[in-house]
Amino acid sequence: MRFTDKLNKMIEKNNSLLCVGLDVDTKKIPPHLLKKEDGLFTFNKKIIDVTTDLVCCYKINMAFYESLGQKGVELLTKTMEYIPREIPVILDGKRGDIGNTAEHYAYEVFDLYKADATTVNPYMGLDSIKPFLNYRDKCIFILCRTSNPSAVDFQNLLVGEKKTPLYEIVAGKIREWNEKKNCGAVAGATYPEDLKKIRFIIGDDVPLLIPGVGKQGGNLEKSVKYGVNSEGKNAIINSSRSILYANNSEEFAFFSRKAAEALKDEINKYR
Amino acid sequence: MRFTDKLNKMIEKNNSLLCVGLDVDTKKIPPHLLKKEDGLFTFNKKIIDVTTDLVCCYKINMAFYESLGQKGVELLTKTMEYIPREIPVILDGKRGDIGNTAEHYAYEVFDLYKADATTVNPYMGLDSIKPFLNYRDKCIFILCRTSNPSAVDFQNLLVGEKKTPLYEIVAGKIREWNEKKNCGAVAGATYPEDLKKIRFIIGDDVPLLIPGVGKQGGNLEKSVKYGVNSEGKNAIINSSRSILYANNSEEFAFFSRKAAEALKDEINKYR
Repeated sequence: MRFTDKLNKMIEKNNSLLCVGLDVDTKKIPPHLLKKEDGLFTFNKKIIDVTTDLVCCYKINMAFYESLGQKGVELLTKTMEYIPREIPVILDGKRGDIGNTAEHYAYEVFDLYKADATTVNPYMGLDSIKPFLNYRDKCIFILCRTSNPSAVDFQNLLVGEKKTPLYEIVAGKIREWNEKKNCGAVAGATYPEDLKKIRFIIGDDVPLLIPGVGKQGGNLEKSVKYGVNSEGKNAIINSSRSILYANNSEEFAFFSRKAAEALKDEINKYR
Repeated sequence: MRFTDKLNKMIEKNNSLLCVGLDVDTKKIPPHLLKKEDGLFTFNKKIIDVTTDLVCCYKINMAFYESLGQKGVELLTKTMEYIPREIPVILDGKRGDIGNTAEHYAYEVFDLYKADATTVNPYMGLDSIKPFLNYRDKCIFILCRTSNPSAVDFQNLLVGEKKTPLYEIVAGKIREWNEKKNCGAVAGATYPEDLKKIRFIIGDDVPLLIPGVGKQGGNLEKSVKYGVNSEGKNAIINSSRSILYANNSEEFAFFSRKAAEALKDEINKYR
């Protein structure tokens, strides 16, 4: 099944655009879990258990797993296996390298870890992204307008006679590269007006991954309104820290669910 | 010791600007090694054994290791430990993410694997690079002008009134961000005229990592001439496939040494 079909099926089933980012961090999980041998996996399991009926997908940022070495590979593998198959998973690595090397990254996310989607960095151009695009049923979210303050350093530079911001050029390229209908774009909630332009340039078909609500302070109302396509779909609102670390007692999962539920409902208010 | 000191010490000791890229690939190593349990590590060991007196540093592209899962982490750890301490190692990951996440990537390359340097992608701007720059004695090679054909997609876009190519803007930023004297830049051998401009913009202090000779067909003479600083140093000419896979018989290491020696000598001809 194509990613967008799988995604929009979950959007309908759970009536949700919410994506929970499983960015498990030893410095932030409830302290009682640190004493357990499998504390990080227990944390992920509990977060997944209390959110499966609230999300349209999960996102896993590879940095949090890779930095744990061997244990991280095991944790990532077990977490991927634990997530119910019907819920799509975005393995967020923001990779980008020359073709020969990018093939290995694509193999890693799609064949080794069996993710449904991934994120890639556009700076090196099309041939660095092609090995990912060869996976027809997956979705490749290309960084367009990221949510961090320094995004403006390069992404807002004005290009050419028409003084087009770089991120708009990238959005145009994503539309052009979407021949196999498996491209997505990353557009941060912290720049909602830019998000609006990206949706306009990119059309209805391309799903947008929208990080930056919650801790990063993005505007939720505008992000939802501008992010969705004309059917109120194809937008994924990601939140990680605000949900995962809502509370650090033994009842953390209860509070994470509350936070996820509240965000899901607020998102739906604006759809 | 600072990276550039360590690097230039090896440049002098081995009279070499050559960097061997240890991009071990199960599809390309000599077939007799595939039968061995520890074949990939044996391959790396032999390549290292025959090149320690020919290189100024090694580069390890993380994609080739990560895509092997658990085994890759083990192989990377063992390979890092096997390389003599005096030879600097660049762990090539081309990472880039929001600050909170980039901290984990920086921890991975510098604390977990104890690399001397890494590569990062500039698209997300300064705050995505800062967590790396906090490691004063390491070197952070920022992608500027990459060696692949599609590099032109974005890196050559003309920015602002002065119509400055994006990669030159990035070069200027690298110079600006080099407060701790621990920035480097990646500039491909396949665009030697651009390399020349980058060295001019970036000054003498910043080491350049120059991939793209060998299989990618970059111009060696120009890359060396334009890449080095006024003392004939601070340039690293990387070659991976042409050296590693020079031959796939049981005597592969002999041929790899020959290829490395020939490239080292040719580089020195142009210094």
